Amino acid sequence: MTRYVYQFEEGDGQDRKRLGGKGAGLAEMSRIGLPVPPGFTITTEACNLYQALGRMPDGLMDEVWAHLAKLEEKLGRRLGDVGRPLLVSVRSGAPISMPGMMDTVLNLGLNPKTTEGLARQTHNRRFALDSYRRFIQMFGNVVMHMDHARFEHILERLKQEVGVPQDTDLNEQHLERLIAQYKELVQQQTQTPFPDDPKVQLEMAIAAVFDSWKNPRAIVYRRLNKIPEDLGTAVNVQSMVFGNMGDSSATGVLFTRNPNTGEPGMYGEYLTQAQGEDVVAGIRTPKAIAEMAEEMPQTYQQLIEVSNLLETHYRDMQDIEFTVQENRLYLLQTRTGKRTARAAVKIAVDLARAGILSKEEAIRRQNPEQVQRLLYRQIDPNADVDLLAQGLPASPGAAFGRVVFTADEAEARGQTGEAVILVRPETTPDDIHGIVAAQGVLTSRGGMTSHAAIVARGMGKPAVTGCEAIKISLTDEKFQVDDRVVEKNDVITIDGGTGRVMLGSVPTVDPELSSEFNELLAWADEKRRLGIQANADTPDDAAKAREFGATGVGLCRTEHMFMGQDRLPVVQAMILAETLEERQQALQSLLPMQQEDFYGILRAMDGYPVTIRLLDPPLHEFLPDIEDTEKALREAKAAGDEGEITRLQAVLRRTRSLFEFNPMLGFRGVRLGIVYPEIYAMQARAIFQAQADLLKQGLHPRVEVMIPLVGTPEELSRMKDMAAEVNQTVSKEQGIPLPYKIGTMIEVPRAALVAGGIAEHAEFFSFGTNDLTQTTFGYSRDDAESKFLPTYLAEKILKENPFMVLDREGVGRLIDIAVKEGRAARPELKVGICGEHGGDPSSIEFCHQIGLDYVSCSPFRVPVARLAAAQAALRE
Amino acid sequence: MTRYVYQFEEGDGQDRKRLGGKGAGLAEMSRIGLPVPPGFTITTEACNLYQALGRMPDGLMDEVWAHLAKLEEKLGRRLGDVGRPLLVSVRSGAPISMPGMMDTVLNLGLNPKTTEGLARQTHNRRFALDSYRRFIQMFGNVVMHMDHARFEHILERLKQEVGVPQDTDLNEQHLERLIAQYKELVQQQTQTPFPDDPKVQLEMAIAAVFDSWKNPRAIVYRRLNKIPEDLGTAVNVQSMVFGNMGDSSATGVLFTRNPNTGEPGMYGEYLTQAQGEDVVAGIRTPKAIAEMAEEMPQTYQQLIEVSNLLETHYRDMQDIEFTVQENRLYLLQTRTGKRTARAAVKIAVDLARAGILSKEEAIRRQNPEQVQRLLYRQIDPNADVDLLAQGLPASPGAAFGRVVFTADEAEARGQTGEAVILVRPETTPDDIHGIVAAQGVLTSRGGMTSHAAIVARGMGKPAVTGCEAIKISLTDEKFQVDDRVVEKNDVITIDGGTGRVMLGSVPTVDPELSSEFNELLAWADEKRRLGIQANADTPDDAAKAREFGATGVGLCRTEHMFMGQDRLPVVQAMILAETLEERQQALQSLLPMQQEDFYGILRAMDGYPVTIRLLDPPLHEFLPDIEDTEKALREAKAAGDEGEITRLQAVLRRTRSLFEFNPMLGFRGVRLGIVYPEIYAMQARAIFQAQADLLKQGLHPRVEVMIPLVGTPEELSRMKDMAAEVNQTVSKEQGIPLPYKIGTMIEVPRAALVAGGIAEHAEFFSFGTNDLTQTTFGYSRDDAESKFLPTYLAEKILKENPFMVLDREGVGRLIDIAVKEGRAARPELKVGICGEHGGDPSSIEFCHQIGLDYVSCSPFRVPVARLAAAQAALRE
Repeated sequence: MTRYVYQFEEGDGQDRKRLGGKGAGLAEMSRIGLPVPPGFTITTEACNLYQALGRMPDGLMDEVWAHLAKLEEKLGRRLGDVGRPLLVSVRSGAPISMPGMMDTVLNLGLNPKTTEGLARQTHNRRFALDSYRRFIQMFGNVVMHMDHARFEHILERLKQEVGVPQDTDLNEQHLERLIAQYKELVQQQTQTPFPDDPKVQLEMAIAAVFDSWKNPRAIVYRRLNKIPEDLGTAVNVQSMVFGNMGDSSATGVLFTRNPNTGEPGMYGEYLTQAQGEDVVAGIRTPKAIAEMAEEMPQTYQQLIEVSNLLETHYRDMQDIEFTVQENRLYLLQTRTGKRTARAAVKIAVDLARAGILSKEEAIRRQNPEQVQRLLYRQIDPNADVDLLAQGLPASPGAAFGRVVFTADEAEARGQTGEAVILVRPETTPDDIHGIVAAQGVLTSRGGMTSHAAIVARGMGKPAVTGCEAIKISLTDEKFQVDDRVVEKNDVITIDGGTGRVMLGSVPTVDPELSSEFNELLAWADEKRRLGIQANADTPDDAAKAREFGATGVGLCRTEHMFMGQDRLPVVQAMILAETLEERQQALQSLLPMQQEDFYGILRAMDGYPVTIRLLDPPLHEFLPDIEDTEKALREAKAAGDEGEITRLQAVLRRTRSLFEFNPMLGFRGVRLGIVYPEIYAMQARAIFQAQADLLKQGLHPRVEVMIPLVGTPEELSRMKDMAAEVNQTVSKEQGIPLPYKIGTMIEVPRAALVAGGIAEHAEFFSFGTNDLTQTTFGYSRDDAESKFLPTYLAEKILKENPFMVLDREGVGRLIDIAVKEGRAARPELKVGICGEHGGDPSSIEFCHQIGLDYVSCSPFRVPVARLAAAQAALRE
Repeated sequence: MTRYVYQFEEGDGQDRKRLGGKGAGLAEMSRIGLPVPPGFTITTEACNLYQALGRMPDGLMDEVWAHLAKLEEKLGRRLGDVGRPLLVSVRSGAPISMPGMMDTVLNLGLNPKTTEGLARQTHNRRFALDSYRRFIQMFGNVVMHMDHARFEHILERLKQEVGVPQDTDLNEQHLERLIAQYKELVQQQTQTPFPDDPKVQLEMAIAAVFDSWKNPRAIVYRRLNKIPEDLGTAVNVQSMVFGNMGDSSATGVLFTRNPNTGEPGMYGEYLTQAQGEDVVAGIRTPKAIAEMAEEMPQTYQQLIEVSNLLETHYRDMQDIEFTVQENRLYLLQTRTGKRTARAAVKIAVDLARAGILSKEEAIRRQNPEQVQRLLYRQIDPNADVDLLAQGLPASPGAAFGRVVFTADEAEARGQTGEAVILVRPETTPDDIHGIVAAQGVLTSRGGMTSHAAIVARGMGKPAVTGCEAIKISLTDEKFQVDDRVVEKNDVITIDGGTGRVMLGSVPTVDPELSSEFNELLAWADEKRRLGIQANADTPDDAAKAREFGATGVGLCRTEHMFMGQDRLPVVQAMILAETLEERQQALQSLLPMQQEDFYGILRAMDGYPVTIRLLDPPLHEFLPDIEDTEKALREAKAAGDEGEITRLQAVLRRTRSLFEFNPMLGFRGVRLGIVYPEIYAMQARAIFQAQADLLKQGLHPRVEVMIPLVGTPEELSRMKDMAAEVNQTVSKEQGIPLPYKIGTMIEVPRAALVAGGIAEHAEFFSFGTNDLTQTTFGYSRDDAESKFLPTYLAEKILKENPFMVLDREGVGRLIDIAVKEGRAARPELKVGICGEHGGDPSSIEFCHQIGLDYVSCSPFRVPVARLAAAQAALRE
């Protein structure tokens, strides 16, 4: 018979799958002798069976009672016993942490009789009554599904009636009244009395935790975080310890290092005279853990020891929950703590430097998508800012947007692409959909470990929490800082790295890489096999790419160079030319400009290959809009300007003749080069002349000429001959040999299918996966993403957007064919990828697996690509 | 040492490659003892060497002189001998016949002395002088490159001076004067005297024939007919016989059967008192061969015997040239005769019925593209025609167009797509470019074997020749029939099947298949393995497809059904619907219309599968043009029509929201079905209801539902479920099981690449090769064919237009992958092709080779497809 229940000390601390993360942590801590209040864990298997049956599995409760009996024996207390009552907490704990998503019940076991027993035993009747009223409130909400606010309402009313500001000011009589009112509320709302039998309470609580696996916010969280639905949650039944037994009692959470920066040293918060949920719920603003050094010096010292022990044991930063009951420390949970990307890098590098981790493990532990956030823009340190207030730096990064006050509005407006900042007194799990859609979150309450802070860090959204200076009025939809009022729709900027809240949108600057990040990337470079290059169209881009560690430009697009204000008129003259001579003349004017472009890029990438793609887009992209020209023509006619009329008519004629039904599949790429070879010849000349200049300066420009959109070997063969001819001419003119490579983009399916023939003329292939995805699927990206792709993704017809994550079955198969057959025809063929996928970790893994030589991505993705390439190599 | 020269009787009659067609024919006829004037052949290898060297190969002329000596000995005559002069003809003869494209010299060996010798020997000084002047004229033109017209001008001037209308009326003195004037012209034009030495004449003539391989009209002809450039021409040197030695002499050409209809019996023309070129040049209108029965009964009988002998020997209709010299028959050439498609079919079937050919050979001999012409439209027999004149039915088919009088104008206007008829007194090889571009040809002179007739038949262009009733004035650019004048640009219709010339454009009707054609197709059906289906969108199309032998509809497009005048408003309402209910309502109105469509097609194809493709094009194709709507809106605003303004604004909004950058790659096909499943559900219901009606009538509708543009297994899976649900509902409503198949078009590369997964949901694949070609190449057909494809074809970057002839390397490879992997996943998978390529013989061959089950093409291509499929099977 399957066993569903394990005492903590019996459990396997590695078996997160069955015991859940919390259960496994409690088991592990119990085993290594840390002070953990005894208890037992009901496995995730029991939960899954419960979900499947829709009821408690046969025999499960019998097993629970047996383990309860063991627990009672261990502690010398019994559930429901008036003399020595046992109280327990009942908590969820899934294999993958889902903070705050599921339910917890504390103080279970209390009823009128055991409350009196607890009072006698603790010599603290007020404490016992307060515990009972908390239990009713929590059980009523979590297990009996009553509205939390109704209890709060009664509590607030009572405090007003008796004229006390704090919960802690209520005396025993007040609490007795409160308990009576709570019970009446329960009876009234649920038509059943509040259960007195602790065993009934326990069975109901276990079922409620199981049920909470399926509550809507948990489902949303799992979808967002791609957590499988079939994991289930374990249930931990643990004997209660009390952080609310007076000033020598406290409860808190801590990270073994700073989860924002990764700096060593405990980082956390605690509240005296409180129970666990009070800290994370963000209702009272807690104290920094450092204050404990004075307030509870012994416990603080003990915490430092436990913290070091657990970190070394788990070889990672831990997130620890603890309670101090009358100066005695108890550990309630330990788990690997969530952290910012910056912290993740620093912690891994620090641990590796300390010999606790291997370099490989330090690399493997990084989430490339999270690391990408290190490259997010930051507030410009030189910007004039209009500082409104200072809160806690809860999740780094800068964000600006219009202020909104509800998660629903944040979702509605954020989904349309509007930048909004969600401003709330505090956030709850029910606000997740709004946080997802907002640029950032600002709360007036809650600490660094409050819900808003944890969730925002997980999503990589900037957040400022506990910003008590702002007074929020939800009804009026505004907030106030001193006498300054910020209304809904006003723009603010938050800096989650410093906690600053600023009025208006503040300029941002590029980030710098930390020394730890650079070290980690250097380790990654040792492990990876894929080369990392960058897509760069300007000398600035190329310089940035070098700074981020790219060893080459995998794609230099030349069309953006044609779009400059000084160039467009010449480009248009070239397109409008009626004769070859006119076109040649316009091209002559473009030549020095292009030469300068190439000079700058080759110089910035000196010593590394620069792959220059000759002109790709259809010519009509450079011509004015037809409607604009028609309007100008009407005006010229009205003004009787004959010269202008003739000119505009010529423009119109040409624009119309260049019109295309499907420009994506039209007259572009090498097709231009074949029909107007003089355009490509000019570009080739500009490249080789720039190369000659640099060579003469003693530099080492490495030129690769790339022909786009090739679909037949013959196209490339013609363009190869053209380039060779220009190269020879320039080489002769300059009196210097100009070595170069010629290759092609593989971006239509046919090119992949005839790659063997193409490779006879190509020294390199670069997969243009954007266009290759469009043609392989038959999707126009512009149209697909605005029309049917959202439905396809929502309905799971496609698992991923193929323009973000490379489609391995279709597009990837074509790439694989092309690599194999291209290399069969020319073993030294260099192959890489230069579509957007070049910066996507999953796509990079695929590129590694099929043996590409390099990937090329935008300069800002280069560090991530270096990391992802190393991870792919380590996964082999 | 390679041998370059062979006496006719030495040559291998099968070796057309080295001896040329004419040389091989002369060799074969000599061997079987037919009366061939002796001579020898210089091989094509000598020609190719001459082309490569740019001069006569070493030793070639020595070999020629040796063979000349043999010839002289055989005949007892010598070249240049005054007593018994030998005269020879020097003719080209390529491996593949190129009628009229290259040069011929007759009467070579004449000079003042041998002319007198010939006169003495023949007792006919006039004949000798006439031969000499003909020789000077021909040699001057062909070998010395002088303008033919200059000689004609002198001849005409002399006839006027001496007051005679016909060449034959010139007497000896006249001819002596003419010869003197011709020689003076030669001296004056070329600065050299006309050569008297017959050996010099012969060497010059041989070189001229070699040179003529590279003349411009020959190059054009080879390009048009896809004849390789490196074949070269042989040269035949043959002793002269004379058709111009009085009334007992004649020259003629004949076909052993009627080359237009294929009817048995000799068909040809002759001229008495003439040399060979006079007949084919079309200068004098010759007599029908049948007249010879009275005029030269013995020779006629001999011709019939020779004709039967050669036809049986060669097992095909022969095209024979002959000369009668003083009642003695000589054969100058035999070759397989060009024929119309109709004749080709009848001849092959007749020969097969007679046991001369096997059925397989009868099938193999057909050129499918030529057979296609049998399906050309004919003049409507019930049409009122305005008959202008009657000429010879030189090349069948009906054509109409505007009258033009020069080949250059026909080319210039024809290339822009304008329909023109080229009208000429006669045509020459220099007119080919005009004939290519014209719809048809009309000449006032020349017979059925004239240049115009032969060339037009070869191209499948309608032609009427020898229409002497029309009097053409080239200078005024008009022609006259009695008192009726037809000016340039007037429209006429010609019927090449009957020889009629009609004013205006006359309505045409579908052709009917001859009994021989049907018999041939029945034989083809026995041999082929591929099924032949048709693309049909209407009951009429389906009926026509059945008539032509299609056994199913491989593609029934449903979008044309949406375009009808009564339907478009409902379709638009459906598209403009803001809610699902509104859309459902519009779809309800469309349902009975669609049902009627499917009813008719299934009924017409009863017992055979009908593959119905659900809606494919983007919805905006059904909406009005944006500019038109904007204009209407401006008008409505001016008129203050509030209702109309609101309606038009809604239309504009929707049209704009449906706008696509690349509609080819946009929101269409199954993507519509996924986003608006109610549209496909309506179509499925219409199909199944029609099926139910037919089943209840005892008919056998075979329904196949085809989902377009699928790229992932999931898309098809959803649509399969949708169809199954509708099928069950209708089946229940109608109380009758409604069996059907579901499948998909494979028309994007990804579908081919994941065919194994798709086949799990598909019972059939149909390759949509039009779209598959577009996406595989990344060519938008609309844009490519107007922009870069003409250059690609002209520059031979592509050998064929991939939209006409299936690209085997790229598109074909995808198809092959899909077939193999689809069948691996589902062995009983039915696979076919339904793009335009389904009717192209080369593509059909490929489909056969990779093992498709069927091809589907337009109804009018069905017979060709049946034939091509059989040929593909026979080629295995």
